[in-house]
Amino acid sequence: MELFYAYEVSGRFCQLDAEESGHCVRVLRHRTGDAVDVIDGLGTLYHCRLTDDSPKGAQAEILSEEANWGGHPYHLTLGCCPTKNNERFEWFVEKATELGVDRIVPLIGEHSERKVYKTERAQRIALSATKQSLKARIPEIVEPMSVKDFLVMPDSDRASLKLIAYCFEDPSIPRRSIMDVLRASDARDITVLIGPEGDFSPEEAALALKNGYRPIHLGPSRLRTETAAVTAVEAVYLYTL
Amino acid sequence: MELFYAYEVSGRFCQLDAEESGHCVRVLRHRTGDAVDVIDGLGTLYHCRLTDDSPKGAQAEILSEEANWGGHPYHLTLGCCPTKNNERFEWFVEKATELGVDRIVPLIGEHSERKVYKTERAQRIALSATKQSLKARIPEIVEPMSVKDFLVMPDSDRASLKLIAYCFEDPSIPRRSIMDVLRASDARDITVLIGPEGDFSPEEAALALKNGYRPIHLGPSRLRTETAAVTAVEAVYLYTL
Repeated sequence: MELFYAYEVSGRFCQLDAEESGHCVRVLRHRTGDAVDVIDGLGTLYHCRLTDDSPKGAQAEILSEEANWGGHPYHLTLGCCPTKNNERFEWFVEKATELGVDRIVPLIGEHSERKVYKTERAQRIALSATKQSLKARIPEIVEPMSVKDFLVMPDSDRASLKLIAYCFEDPSIPRRSIMDVLRASDARDITVLIGPEGDFSPEEAALALKNGYRPIHLGPSRLRTETAAVTAVEAVYLYTL
Repeated sequence: MELFYAYEVSGRFCQLDAEESGHCVRVLRHRTGDAVDVIDGLGTLYHCRLTDDSPKGAQAEILSEEANWGGHPYHLTLGCCPTKNNERFEWFVEKATELGVDRIVPLIGEHSERKVYKTERAQRIALSATKQSLKARIPEIVEPMSVKDFLVMPDSDRASLKLIAYCFEDPSIPRRSIMDVLRASDARDITVLIGPEGDFSPEEAALALKNGYRPIHLGPSRLRTETAAVTAVEAVYLYTL
């Protein structure tokens, strides 16, 4: 099954941009009249008929649609500090999208070695992984923000279960495993924060706890930042199976 | 914490090969008398004192040791068909090692596009990920074998829980999710098989069932081969948390 992404759905028609049109018409050689499946990136799959096979700007007419197609039974925001090596963070974006994530927030922590992150490549990777894993909703990848700015966003309070994974030892703060916390909760709107290689700063961790975040650990293995982020997505994904 | 791998431990001494010696002496500038931590790749961590700082063949004297250091409470064999793109399989090897896996079996299936796989690079990646994630045991990466040869190996019968993830629809064979099966079992010696992009052949799947493998699914998302393999490791790792 091949999916195409429509940057615009107006009335009965889906509009494909130059890249999607080229893939549809030049690479896959679809012609006017062919049946094609189109997603809007917002959760809806459209079964269509190609009405314009221009390789620069193809158009398809909607015959039927399926809402919340390829969705998952939770809403997950994953805040993660981008890694020094961009490829590792982009790998996390691909895997999180395949499994099912709703929002990815690149966080800049006080201990982050990477203070700047451009989201363009991650956006493309998320689109490609969304189509490859047969989903209609592309995860939102927001612009980078500091850990502290994210923690005080009213929006970050929406989640009914807010978790922060950090490693530095503070015996006064008991941490439970992410699975223990998920087992003890029926929350389906979840936010998980993963720190940079240098971990969150004590001030960031304290602010998170003050704002209702619960400290968790991801088990005994010392995981790389991107592995920890994928493990958090896997925990939420697998827990709902 | 920096770990070095000893290719040989004889009596009170650990021998480092040229690569580990160069890293220890040239890069990290350790000198005779320095305290160093050495793993044997079999599960034991040795606290040592460097007794020979030759950059080609360093030697360290064992002061104390910790058995089963950085271990996990299960024994997991992951059989997976190598992907067309080698990097994706090697990424799986790195992540599985970070989380905790005991044996990786590169499987060649009837539908595999890749019929040949060399394990040298994966061995190096597993060693590096073992040290990075603070473990003393390097997962065994066996030479590639056909799915059918693996299924009839007496060795493959050792596991008390044998699972095969496959996608092709056969309504006569009900599949449960890997989490359901793990929840219903107290098995700690587990084998999971993940097929190639083209899935297992019906004959391979039938032979697996005949040999005591239980069919499972990994949830609603369509996962790439390497993502499915990591998700199986995550399920076993997270389930024991």
